[in-house]
Amino acid sequence: MDQNSKPSAIQALGEAVKSIRVAMLTTQEKEGGLRSRPMVCAGLDQDALWFITKEHTPKVAEAQEHQAVNIAFASPEKDMYLSVTGQAQVVHDRKLLQKLWSAELSRWFPQGVSDPDLALLRIDIRHTEQWNFA
Amino acid sequence: MDQNSKPSAIQALGEAVKSIRVAMLTTQEKEGGLRSRPMVCAGLDQDALWFITKEHTPKVAEAQEHQAVNIAFASPEKDMYLSVTGQAQVVHDRKLLQKLWSAELSRWFPQGVSDPDLALLRIDIRHTEQWNFA
Repeated sequence: MDQNSKPSAIQALGEAVKSIRVAMLTTQEKEGGLRSRPMVCAGLDQDALWFITKEHTPKVAEAQEHQAVNIAFASPEKDMYLSVTGQAQVVHDRKLLQKLWSAELSRWFPQGVSDPDLALLRIDIRHTEQWNFA
Repeated sequence: MDQNSKPSAIQALGEAVKSIRVAMLTTQEKEGGLRSRPMVCAGLDQDALWFITKEHTPKVAEAQEHQAVNIAFASPEKDMYLSVTGQAQVVHDRKLLQKLWSAELSRWFPQGVSDPDLALLRIDIRHTEQWNFA
């Protein structure tokens, strides 16, 4: 991260992960267009955001081709907005996947945590920006 | 737009513009990183979304260098998410700017509609995707 105030950026991110929950992941298509889609954030550590995804999907293919992605937490109701400029990486770690799994993910992945196509998407945090008008 | 059902896509966008109001605009930096920031959507027509912006800002410079952008409407509270893959263009049209101006924009642009640095950002809609879980 290139933030001067890394702890406060991580703290703000922690609040967004907790209160907004669903982020928009933007990736770049092969043809150059930018696409976004909602994803539940499964975890946050000092350097990265973690998401659970189906591996064989366009978003994972796009994130592997162009690792530069954006994660946007937006809540017009709470008047809170947060942007994460990051680098994406697919991680295969069933133990961590099970640790990060939560019941609400069943809505997105009805086959559950044992679905063999599930993988982790790790977003290395390079830069964050936040807007909090509340 | 490459949607088969253009009228329904525009209708969904119209609902998002009306009910979510604030979108996240993602642009690509010169170095390749993706950044996003909240923006009030000022208007929608059959082919484009319109935003009002300060012209001399990094986002406008980025959108002029890499016209491929994403507009994400996200409301975790309403469980509505919408992605627009688009091409950005700066438009200088004071008459249209005054037409699209609304009082809520004063919060973002305290100098008001006569601020000489204001310009229009037109996002040509190439593709939309929507998720509505409500």
